[in-house]
Amino acid sequence: MSKTIAINAGSSSLKWQLYSMPEEEVIAKGLIERIGIADSVSTVKFKGQTETETVDIADHTQAVKILLDDLIRLNIISDYEEITGVGHRVVAGGEYFQDSVLVDEKVIEQVEELGLLAPLHNPANAAGIRAFKEILPDITSVVVFDTAFHTTMPEVAYRYPIANRYYKEYKVRKYGAHGTSHQYVAQEAAKILGKPIEDLKLVTCHIGNGVSITAVDGGKSIDTSMGLTPLGGVMMGTRSGDLDPAIIPFLIDREPELANAEKIRTVFNRESGLLGVSGTSSDMRDIIAGQEAGDHDAALAFDMFVDRLKKYIGQYIAVLNGVDAIVFTAGIGENAPEVREAVISGISWFGAELDLEKNASGSEGIISKDDAKVKVLIVPTDEELVIARDVERLKKS
Amino acid sequence: MSKTIAINAGSSSLKWQLYSMPEEEVIAKGLIERIGIADSVSTVKFKGQTETETVDIADHTQAVKILLDDLIRLNIISDYEEITGVGHRVVAGGEYFQDSVLVDEKVIEQVEELGLLAPLHNPANAAGIRAFKEILPDITSVVVFDTAFHTTMPEVAYRYPIANRYYKEYKVRKYGAHGTSHQYVAQEAAKILGKPIEDLKLVTCHIGNGVSITAVDGGKSIDTSMGLTPLGGVMMGTRSGDLDPAIIPFLIDREPELANAEKIRTVFNRESGLLGVSGTSSDMRDIIAGQEAGDHDAALAFDMFVDRLKKYIGQYIAVLNGVDAIVFTAGIGENAPEVREAVISGISWFGAELDLEKNASGSEGIISKDDAKVKVLIVPTDEELVIARDVERLKKS
Repeated sequence: MSKTIAINAGSSSLKWQLYSMPEEEVIAKGLIERIGIADSVSTVKFKGQTETETVDIADHTQAVKILLDDLIRLNIISDYEEITGVGHRVVAGGEYFQDSVLVDEKVIEQVEELGLLAPLHNPANAAGIRAFKEILPDITSVVVFDTAFHTTMPEVAYRYPIANRYYKEYKVRKYGAHGTSHQYVAQEAAKILGKPIEDLKLVTCHIGNGVSITAVDGGKSIDTSMGLTPLGGVMMGTRSGDLDPAIIPFLIDREPELANAEKIRTVFNRESGLLGVSGTSSDMRDIIAGQEAGDHDAALAFDMFVDRLKKYIGQYIAVLNGVDAIVFTAGIGENAPEVREAVISGISWFGAELDLEKNASGSEGIISKDDAKVKVLIVPTDEELVIARDVERLKKS
Repeated sequence: MSKTIAINAGSSSLKWQLYSMPEEEVIAKGLIERIGIADSVSTVKFKGQTETETVDIADHTQAVKILLDDLIRLNIISDYEEITGVGHRVVAGGEYFQDSVLVDEKVIEQVEELGLLAPLHNPANAAGIRAFKEILPDITSVVVFDTAFHTTMPEVAYRYPIANRYYKEYKVRKYGAHGTSHQYVAQEAAKILGKPIEDLKLVTCHIGNGVSITAVDGGKSIDTSMGLTPLGGVMMGTRSGDLDPAIIPFLIDREPELANAEKIRTVFNRESGLLGVSGTSSDMRDIIAGQEAGDHDAALAFDMFVDRLKKYIGQYIAVLNGVDAIVFTAGIGENAPEVREAVISGISWFGAELDLEKNASGSEGIISKDDAKVKVLIVPTDEELVIARDVERLKKS
């Protein structure tokens, strides 16, 4: 038995989950917020309790120390040495990483270099890796990439129809995201369906604040909706997804200050999606409440969100040339029966039909009718577990 | 019997076709090129002959005079008065025009104003309208909009998932294009299939140098791939189609001179698509030749082009929640059996299967196997005929 910690480091946060492996039992989990800002908050959940502590935390190294001391203080571990493995989620693995890897200095440098592709995420991820390396230099340390699952995409899917020098000089291509989530729910779906994943064509729908849809053929990602960055693909909470690129110069002609990379990113990453259309909220719960209250813009935002999901499912059924099951996961995918019902009832021609009772209750597993040709499933995602499993796997290698 | 002329005016060109109506017989057709540039060329085709004349033409008014004088000189008409109707193709009709309209001063002003949406096309279209108004002020003059057929799209399809002020202030929305072509081939397909168009779900694929795909439900456009401008949607000869918008700021960070509306338009309108990926040509014939010769980049361009077509057909089958037939038209759609075969064989799960002999011969009409659940058709487009018919229809109104 060993203890493995899964880490998801953001620019000012550190989310963690401590596992007993190989039992895959969650011993404790927590979140440190406002790192580098005044009044940092550390929350620890274990054995049904929640402990919260407010303390100034200057950087990720200090955050890791606070976290480990919390574990000792709360008698979750008796000393640091009990933790034998750490796995770090990294958003962008670029073309370097087809799988999770053991950490060394070169890996950390490559993660930092790939900050070009994920400027908000990779530097923070690297800071988390360095912090653990400093405090627990001898444990097995593994990096798990959000993009690795998508490195099986063929060139026809990952290349953009733009001048090929942009690929050759800057590696402008589709990388995708949420890879550990898509991989996990695809594998779980195969188990639930009782079929070898090699024989299955799946469309996996990770629908949270970020949304990505993946075409999984025989267990491999062959296409995914997120692109060069997590802005691509479908409409999301505050992100637009793919667009006619002519919209950008059209807006620049009218608002010349938009001729600026950072401003363009802000408009399409932070002011678009459900928030942009509804004018009020990026949260699907608010959108559904607004729709029910008769608010036109909220209803439109809901309908557009569903429309774009249907379109991506349809296009990936085309790419897969068939589909055995459609899998819903993540915040909205697991918890919004209204979205699942609107999507699936709108594409019944493909052969999917929901068991409305199972859909309403949101029960894990198959939620389509028994005789439906195309199955529909809810599979709660568990990216932390994939990370902990990868630490175990690489420890042995 | 009356003579009606269909006009498609570009910035330096004037394409025309003279019909005898209501017989819908083409009497003559031609093209005037290099208007406003030295050595303008006027070509007239009639009764199997082709006449070419080189003469300096300063503007569209002079071009119309030359055209009419050619018709008299070649004994195609004996005087101007024989022409009783003219129909003008206009690219952008914005939210003003749901149908073709009789020309008056207000219509011309609106066409000019909509130059905001089609800066290369609408001003030239308006120049053509004004030229005919000046020379033949008393004939029935009609404007036919490329966008009118798509004005039946619901809000969920035409709105973008971006801040709603961009729609309210600048009318940033999807307008689509090739409307007369999609409408014409949908109507012809219904005739060929022997069913009322009201009962049909069609995906019409206009695949030329510009490419657009439309979901036609009961004869009405409910979604189309081109967007705010004809850059949107699928990969084309030199255009990218829809993209992850983050690509633009990513490129600006590396090439700061791209922070310019005109430069952005150039990159994605003129240097992308088949040309961008192959690095050699925007012409599908060259791409296929390159592919056959084993050129990697040409083969990739072909495969990506087919992949994006499959994706749009799949997504519109989702939007329609079913499909009775897939219709191919325009240059590539009518003349590239390789493209049709790669597309349809790749999405056989939907129930379409080609009769390979009919596909190879490119025969007009149904080219799918007799027992295919989803029919596939080739319908040569005829935008000029739609224009001539609309002149007749509005003459009576």
